[in-house]
Amino acid sequence: MIGRAAAQTGKGARDRMSVTRGDTERAARRIGGRIRRTPVFEAAPGLLFKMEFLQHSGSFKVRGAFNRVLSARERGEPTEHGVVAASGGNHGVAVAYVARALGVRAEIFVPEITSAVKVDGLRALGAEVTQTGAVYADALLASRKRVAETGALEVHAYDHPDVIAGQGTVGLELLEQTGGVDTVLVATGGGGLVSGIAAAVAGEAAVVAVEPERIPTFNHALAAGAPVDVPVSGIAADSLGATRLGEAAFEIAREQGVASVLVSDEAIARAREELWRDYRIAVEPAGATAFAALRCGAYRPREGERVAVVLCGANTDPSTLS
Amino acid sequence: MIGRAAAQTGKGARDRMSVTRGDTERAARRIGGRIRRTPVFEAAPGLLFKMEFLQHSGSFKVRGAFNRVLSARERGEPTEHGVVAASGGNHGVAVAYVARALGVRAEIFVPEITSAVKVDGLRALGAEVTQTGAVYADALLASRKRVAETGALEVHAYDHPDVIAGQGTVGLELLEQTGGVDTVLVATGGGGLVSGIAAAVAGEAAVVAVEPERIPTFNHALAAGAPVDVPVSGIAADSLGATRLGEAAFEIAREQGVASVLVSDEAIARAREELWRDYRIAVEPAGATAFAALRCGAYRPREGERVAVVLCGANTDPSTLS
Repeated sequence: MIGRAAAQTGKGARDRMSVTRGDTERAARRIGGRIRRTPVFEAAPGLLFKMEFLQHSGSFKVRGAFNRVLSARERGEPTEHGVVAASGGNHGVAVAYVARALGVRAEIFVPEITSAVKVDGLRALGAEVTQTGAVYADALLASRKRVAETGALEVHAYDHPDVIAGQGTVGLELLEQTGGVDTVLVATGGGGLVSGIAAAVAGEAAVVAVEPERIPTFNHALAAGAPVDVPVSGIAADSLGATRLGEAAFEIAREQGVASVLVSDEAIARAREELWRDYRIAVEPAGATAFAALRCGAYRPREGERVAVVLCGANTDPSTLS
Repeated sequence: MIGRAAAQTGKGARDRMSVTRGDTERAARRIGGRIRRTPVFEAAPGLLFKMEFLQHSGSFKVRGAFNRVLSARERGEPTEHGVVAASGGNHGVAVAYVARALGVRAEIFVPEITSAVKVDGLRALGAEVTQTGAVYADALLASRKRVAETGALEVHAYDHPDVIAGQGTVGLELLEQTGGVDTVLVATGGGGLVSGIAAAVAGEAAVVAVEPERIPTFNHALAAGAPVDVPVSGIAADSLGATRLGEAAFEIAREQGVASVLVSDEAIARAREELWRDYRIAVEPAGATAFAALRCGAYRPREGERVAVVLCGANTDPSTLS
């Protein structure tokens, strides 16, 4: 009950580790006019796809980024020095999109290895891009140095209550659109999306975190009783490749009883191909990871169970589907 | 008022040229358990996408094919000799899918030029494929010879009231899902989809037929007062490349006051790219044709108009999007 304890000490929402359903509802009101309400598709009886890859910037990440910046403004924190993020992937694109929409400067830090295509994409959204260091951790370090120097607002990819509450709006929409489901399957990397959804649907649906076997951040955190570093590799590493689960995400997911399921890279690749072949849905490997758990049998619904699968991102090269 | 006249002579529904909203409602009940209810996505305020490319077989065509075969069964027409269609495109795939689902034999006639990939796709669905003749008209002729010989059921791609009523269920769903729209934009080739939707939404929404400039079947039919042959070429010819509009489609579309709009191949290509870039929707050129009318200004909604765009097919090589 870290959240409650923090609240009792009088700290602001930004310092609390916990995120409640009420936080996700406030986030929904805050960001509602700026995000897309992505549709739910009943792909087969009892199998519902939350089509979040249709979101601005091609993934759910704009929800958390909008909520982070708008919540900071509400609290009177300065945003005139712009926002800073470290990410060459979906989060970086989302922060660039959000900054442009809100009329603030964005500086995105990415490691040297980031492809020219991704850097150009960020610049096309109006972001300044700084390429620095060999790995992500170097870029993150540089981004934090910049935050300390300039007073810009750091938008973390997952380990912040405002980001988690923003991602949780996916779960609220899902409940509203479906009239309720039994289970929600969510691909998990740093844990922002799965913990936000768990907070949003608390008491109304079970949540299952689906991770690649080769990036088991939540699975190992559950075993260890706290987030621990894991090796990162495989087909979905560009989007789910956090080295460890976020602290806040872990507290929420554990408190809400989120279950852990692992899938192989082969299962993810097959699920992605099947989504294209049978539904003409083109997603990235991370976007197919939750579906993979159903298709490979890592998660087996009981008879009559209504299962929602969050298809969370589609920042992919479609030529890899032909 | 051909439909009314035919009804008065006591002919069955299959001989009538007209299709009413009631016909589409009966079609919806007939095929409801066999098709996907594709979602509607509010892509921007007042801009609604009917996501029909998510349908079984990758296009709306299964709706008409299911309704054609199931209506024939209801009337006691024999289907034990299987079904026959002439099409190397979306219609052929849909008929093969429907035949498999209903446990009847399908024979699909395609011209010699049809690619091995398409032939293999039809065979993978269990259809027998006969490649014959240089052009589509040859395959159609051969298919009709087979129908006459075997008593198999011909499933026309668009020029049959049962097919039109089946396609019209797209329009019924759209009304139910949106609570009403002002205008529906529909890509048009042989006219089955646009006339079915026009029948379904009659009196509730305006319908606009959007055609490639290089295949103006409806546009020229309106000018001539009857369907006439048009030259067929361009980027969307594989799906919209009917030589002339269907007779039944023309009667319905004219009676319902369907408007005609033409778009260039360049506008179609740009719209298709934009659907991928801004929404992560991968459709074929025909599937982007209705959206092209909005993007290039060929159709300009008035302030506050609620416009639904039918994204009707996604049988495409996704590598052409990268």
